Amino acid sequence: MKFIIQRDYLLQSVQDVMKAVTSRTTIPILTGIKIVAHEEGVTLTGSDSDISIESFIQKELEGDEIVEIKQRGSIVLQARFFSEIIKKLPTDIVEIEVQPNLQTVIRSGKSEFKLNGLDAEEYPHLPQILEEHIFKIPTNLLKGLIRQTVFSVSTSETRPILTGVNWKVENNELICIATDSHRLALRKAEIEAGNTESYNVVIPGKSLNELIKILDDSSDLVDIVITENQVLFKAKHLLFFSRLLEGNYPDTGRLIPNESKTEVVVVTKQFLNAIDRASLLAKEGRNNVVKLATIDGGAIEISSITPEIGTVVEEIPSQSIAGEELKISFSAKYMMDALKALEGSEIQISFTGAMRPFVIRPLHDDSILQLILPVRTY
Amino acid sequence: MKFIIQRDYLLQSVQDVMKAVTSRTTIPILTGIKIVAHEEGVTLTGSDSDISIESFIQKELEGDEIVEIKQRGSIVLQARFFSEIIKKLPTDIVEIEVQPNLQTVIRSGKSEFKLNGLDAEEYPHLPQILEEHIFKIPTNLLKGLIRQTVFSVSTSETRPILTGVNWKVENNELICIATDSHRLALRKAEIEAGNTESYNVVIPGKSLNELIKILDDSSDLVDIVITENQVLFKAKHLLFFSRLLEGNYPDTGRLIPNESKTEVVVVTKQFLNAIDRASLLAKEGRNNVVKLATIDGGAIEISSITPEIGTVVEEIPSQSIAGEELKISFSAKYMMDALKALEGSEIQISFTGAMRPFVIRPLHDDSILQLILPVRTY
Repeated sequence: MKFIIQRDYLLQSVQDVMKAVTSRTTIPILTGIKIVAHEEGVTLTGSDSDISIESFIQKELEGDEIVEIKQRGSIVLQARFFSEIIKKLPTDIVEIEVQPNLQTVIRSGKSEFKLNGLDAEEYPHLPQILEEHIFKIPTNLLKGLIRQTVFSVSTSETRPILTGVNWKVENNELICIATDSHRLALRKAEIEAGNTESYNVVIPGKSLNELIKILDDSSDLVDIVITENQVLFKAKHLLFFSRLLEGNYPDTGRLIPNESKTEVVVVTKQFLNAIDRASLLAKEGRNNVVKLATIDGGAIEISSITPEIGTVVEEIPSQSIAGEELKISFSAKYMMDALKALEGSEIQISFTGAMRPFVIRPLHDDSILQLILPVRTY
Repeated sequence: MKFIIQRDYLLQSVQDVMKAVTSRTTIPILTGIKIVAHEEGVTLTGSDSDISIESFIQKELEGDEIVEIKQRGSIVLQARFFSEIIKKLPTDIVEIEVQPNLQTVIRSGKSEFKLNGLDAEEYPHLPQILEEHIFKIPTNLLKGLIRQTVFSVSTSETRPILTGVNWKVENNELICIATDSHRLALRKAEIEAGNTESYNVVIPGKSLNELIKILDDSSDLVDIVITENQVLFKAKHLLFFSRLLEGNYPDTGRLIPNESKTEVVVVTKQFLNAIDRASLLAKEGRNNVVKLATIDGGAIEISSITPEIGTVVEEIPSQSIAGEELKISFSAKYMMDALKALEGSEIQISFTGAMRPFVIRPLHDDSILQLILPVRTY
């Protein structure tokens, strides 16, 4: 294998596939990046066996030569060293050549590295996925869908299924749901599906968190292929494979109340900042719990007490309050996570009493909701 | 105590004195910040008993009222909570009022915090320093002096005196020396001393590292007062006290060779980048050691080998090479630290053989030098 390549393209590709590489693997060859030089360009692969990422660098882009293939072939190089080396090379052009003993020469300017390589034949094969059923989502919408739900997955392995996000596709609509059983995030979007099939799968939260790191912010369509135990995201020059979680996701539909006793509308940023301030004194004591109470004059009061440290009380105006008076306590962290995930300058919170889950939505937007279970303190 | 203050000034002051506050103290009150409201304004103090920082906020600045003192007094508030609260307050104006039970009310907009305070009478007194003998250094020069030497102090407590920087004042010249016995940094500067006294003290590296964080980049003069066991730096609105290290600093003069066998001049940045690349493969194996060799044609070769990983060789041009041929090995980290501390686009390295310490200086600048002990490998 021998090729000459523009460093910037190689570096971008290496950094993308590195997202799947971990040093804590029981399969030593997976600490490496597989590099294949072929007719059309260079393909890099990184994998931790749960997630696999493949990045393709084409020979030419808009008349500009990016890769010159001198000799086809393949090699696996230690990901950590290879990526550090590419980052620090002295010139914009890199030559990579595999010698018969698998030692790989990396030349740039007057700098010459020789890295011990591994036989690419021993690198695990990527899952084979039949691309029969594909649906498409614009990249920026996909990132939004993930960002607005994935933070609510469980971090505990006691119910492994809750560490993933439930994706349901039906009637050209995608519904993403995540819950750790104390809060729930739900986001819907219309999708372009080429068929009328339906899916109900659970994608590991960790995979989705890595995926959003390597997607750009364009509106280019991402192809999504779901099989029995794998999901494949196909973006431009990039394949992202993740295994699916096994098991049935709980039916979350009945958790979401469809009536309410108190409705509050507030300015998102004002409310978020007040919660943030109240949480300053709540972190120490009882699990970061703050209190919300409706008060006279159409305002709400946010407060928190930690006897050893002190107290905080803040009144914030509401755009509207309807229904019963209310005093309720909840996790400031859950509330801030939810508010940061919501779009829109105003939000509506629908309470069904101090002991029942409540729902936060952007005003006039039904595609997203955040649900939080209150904490018993009153 | 009661005063109204512009939040930005208070926040800056809090962040400055926080540099001296640590949560790992055996004296509980030192986890707090002392606040004193007096005739001229507000004074804040933070201390870990080794370092003490006092910041003064004056009542007026250029006709702008910064503090309005309603009632004089003092209090000690938990540093961590107080600083977080001030950072997140909703408006630019803050009112602080101590109640008879020492609970302190912090009001801003519609937000009201009450923090449990401690009696300021119980806060340790700052060292009393007679300001008989003062010398002066511009702030930016002082920061340079520290930055160019402090990284070479020892991090090991086996010889505590080496964890400090040796400051010697004589004949209106300040010499700063730091060494961990594997390398040495030396920087001289002329100072404005109002007297002909001389000093020879050792200032803890940790104190100097905190000091440069709170000094601005102006050329305003900093007053420096040295006593038997304390040093005081007086900048605008800021007092910084540090204890001195006890004991005699070793005589480092004879370590620095005054002859040389090989003289090399290189472009600093080119040389630094080559060392950085060579160190990529050196980190794993033998203590980050790289090799330098003079080669034919007026160039030098930087190389490194870690058999399990690979090798790197790079040739870099030298501006000039004089004297004997040389092969030498040294720590890439020490070399990079030294090069980053030096000013100037070209440096001169003076070698006295492969086993002797060598000296790095900016070309045509005798005020600074870095010395490194080689590693035996050839």
